Amino acid sequence: MLDQHGSAHSRTPSVTATRGESVPTVPPASTAARETAVDVAALLERGRTLATPVLRAAVNRLAAPMDTVSAYHFGWIDAEGNPADGDGGKAVRPALAVLSAEVTGAAPEVGVPGAVAVELVHNFSLLHDDLMDGDEQRRHRDTVWKVHGPAQAILVGDALFALANEVLLELGTVEAGRATRRLTTATRALIDGQAQDISYEHRDRVSVEECLEMEGNKTGALLACASSIGAVLGGADDRTADTLEKYGYHLGLAFQAVDDLLGIWGDPVSTGKQTWSDLRQRKKSLPVVAALAAGGAASERLGEMLAADAKSNDFENFSEAEFAARADLIEKAGGREWTAEEARRQHTVAVEALNAVDMPDRVRARFTALADFVVVRKR
Amino acid sequence: MLDQHGSAHSRTPSVTATRGESVPTVPPASTAARETAVDVAALLERGRTLATPVLRAAVNRLAAPMDTVSAYHFGWIDAEGNPADGDGGKAVRPALAVLSAEVTGAAPEVGVPGAVAVELVHNFSLLHDDLMDGDEQRRHRDTVWKVHGPAQAILVGDALFALANEVLLELGTVEAGRATRRLTTATRALIDGQAQDISYEHRDRVSVEECLEMEGNKTGALLACASSIGAVLGGADDRTADTLEKYGYHLGLAFQAVDDLLGIWGDPVSTGKQTWSDLRQRKKSLPVVAALAAGGAASERLGEMLAADAKSNDFENFSEAEFAARADLIEKAGGREWTAEEARRQHTVAVEALNAVDMPDRVRARFTALADFVVVRKR
Repeated sequence: MLDQHGSAHSRTPSVTATRGESVPTVPPASTAARETAVDVAALLERGRTLATPVLRAAVNRLAAPMDTVSAYHFGWIDAEGNPADGDGGKAVRPALAVLSAEVTGAAPEVGVPGAVAVELVHNFSLLHDDLMDGDEQRRHRDTVWKVHGPAQAILVGDALFALANEVLLELGTVEAGRATRRLTTATRALIDGQAQDISYEHRDRVSVEECLEMEGNKTGALLACASSIGAVLGGADDRTADTLEKYGYHLGLAFQAVDDLLGIWGDPVSTGKQTWSDLRQRKKSLPVVAALAAGGAASERLGEMLAADAKSNDFENFSEAEFAARADLIEKAGGREWTAEEARRQHTVAVEALNAVDMPDRVRARFTALADFVVVRKR
Repeated sequence: MLDQHGSAHSRTPSVTATRGESVPTVPPASTAARETAVDVAALLERGRTLATPVLRAAVNRLAAPMDTVSAYHFGWIDAEGNPADGDGGKAVRPALAVLSAEVTGAAPEVGVPGAVAVELVHNFSLLHDDLMDGDEQRRHRDTVWKVHGPAQAILVGDALFALANEVLLELGTVEAGRATRRLTTATRALIDGQAQDISYEHRDRVSVEECLEMEGNKTGALLACASSIGAVLGGADDRTADTLEKYGYHLGLAFQAVDDLLGIWGDPVSTGKQTWSDLRQRKKSLPVVAALAAGGAASERLGEMLAADAKSNDFENFSEAEFAARADLIEKAGGREWTAEEARRQHTVAVEALNAVDMPDRVRARFTALADFVVVRKR
């Protein structure tokens, strides 16, 4: 992938994107989706429609007050317990899980327990990570630990994790055992990624390679599982599952690269986050580490500023202009364009991985369309 | 079991134990252990010897710093990272897990992945519960969140939970899938029990029935799993596993009743806890709820005192004499003797459950001996 010191620099294009234009994630050259005119919105809606009732039924099994706290987290009720029509997120994972069942010729429904289990693990990690990171807002709302306290965030996270295994294992099939094992591997990676994320916070410098490894763990592993779990439940062999995992892993890295761009340059109205969100949190995201690794005047000036910020007592009172200055240096050093290119590169690896698996053209086109969607999204 | 209001009272003996004598957990009438002269210490040592190396190898798989934090939690190193010979606990669960493999005629080693998985789940729950409950000491040492911070306690707990599933599922057998499913059910019960424990803290009154349900979840479910998981891995059918679970569940309730006695009247040198430990934490443990449910002068006086304590700003400065007065009222109201009797009663149900399963006499004698040990232990 990348060598430890230089390659982020060597691959950084000399021409940087113009500030103010939209996030430079030009759709890549894959045309399969356009040829077969896949309706991505319908694909996402299908995953959501199939998975949500099963997810809600699973969460309803939790004893009080864990059912209520979960319902708040998922956006089904507000803090006062009134029904809410919360932002359920993009639902890329459920769409992938039910689509992957179709690789084996099974109905999309076969992937539903996998979709639900993956969503439960994802949300377990959100509940715990928000508490560990002290994040007070998610999806435009106060996080669970802010509303219901730290103990409930821990407890309900644990319950969702256990429920994920339960939803799969109660199928009682050999395939369910295999799916649970893969989900467990992904969960371990997720936890490793969070451990890396925490340890990087206390360090001045993080290499591009370390950042990619962390993002592969935090985002790639679970998207890998989502992209294969339906196929595993449909009886796919290990080679097919591994290949679908490869697609999902690189799709996850593309997804995260775009997220990192949106975390600095995204439109707050679309993302639901503050302006310069990741800069306010001093996140060592890809654009930042790539800019720091790039060398040159802007890179060095950025390094000095961020080092000073880490010691500053006044950081919380920084103005918009001060964050804008940092974003500008990241961009001048090539961090923005490098990350956009990285998203395209990971997208290509993901889509090409699909070539190693036999599947109906229709299914392949849908995987490709979902990959295209991930890199052009604005939120 | 018990009706919601009256039966704790109706079963409370009129004669209470004399203060100052040892915890009144007279060994029950089962004689199988003595007839075949089971060496309980050797049985516990066998479980520990078989499980510990596999447990340590599993924990060593964790990425830094989670491996180190875990090693501290298990007592293998001290807070500075130097090797330590920590108190590994009584090791009843591993002893039960390897013993249960022998029910099926398998070697005890067959139960080892089950023993390790159960220990991992148990320790995941300790890490999270200590943080949720704000407990600063466990096994004579500072708890993980005190030494390594709350984030590490959450993260490492998560990692141990995931590792538990991994250790089982990597066996790749149908039996391992069944064992993981049962472990998941037990873990969900564990989490339900912790949810109940937290909610009871905010209530003035908890019924004996609610307390037993909570203790069944927090202690019974995982001992049930420990008592059957080796048999499941050895190929036992569901009826056999269910019966062994029944033994373990009631053993767990006996275990917890003894724990509740030790939590008030135990010798601090043996238990490693403060004097009147559970009273200092205002725990609504069995002796307390049974005393409150008993009625009569001592019960009413206790209720008034505990209600006043809950509003007191000076509770943390209470003297030994003040806790002793509360313990005395619990005893006068019959809470101590009722709990001791409850331990014996649950022990009897546990041992009698074994009659429904065919197993070698030697194995049956060992299960019985472990049950006897649980109710006579002093720590």
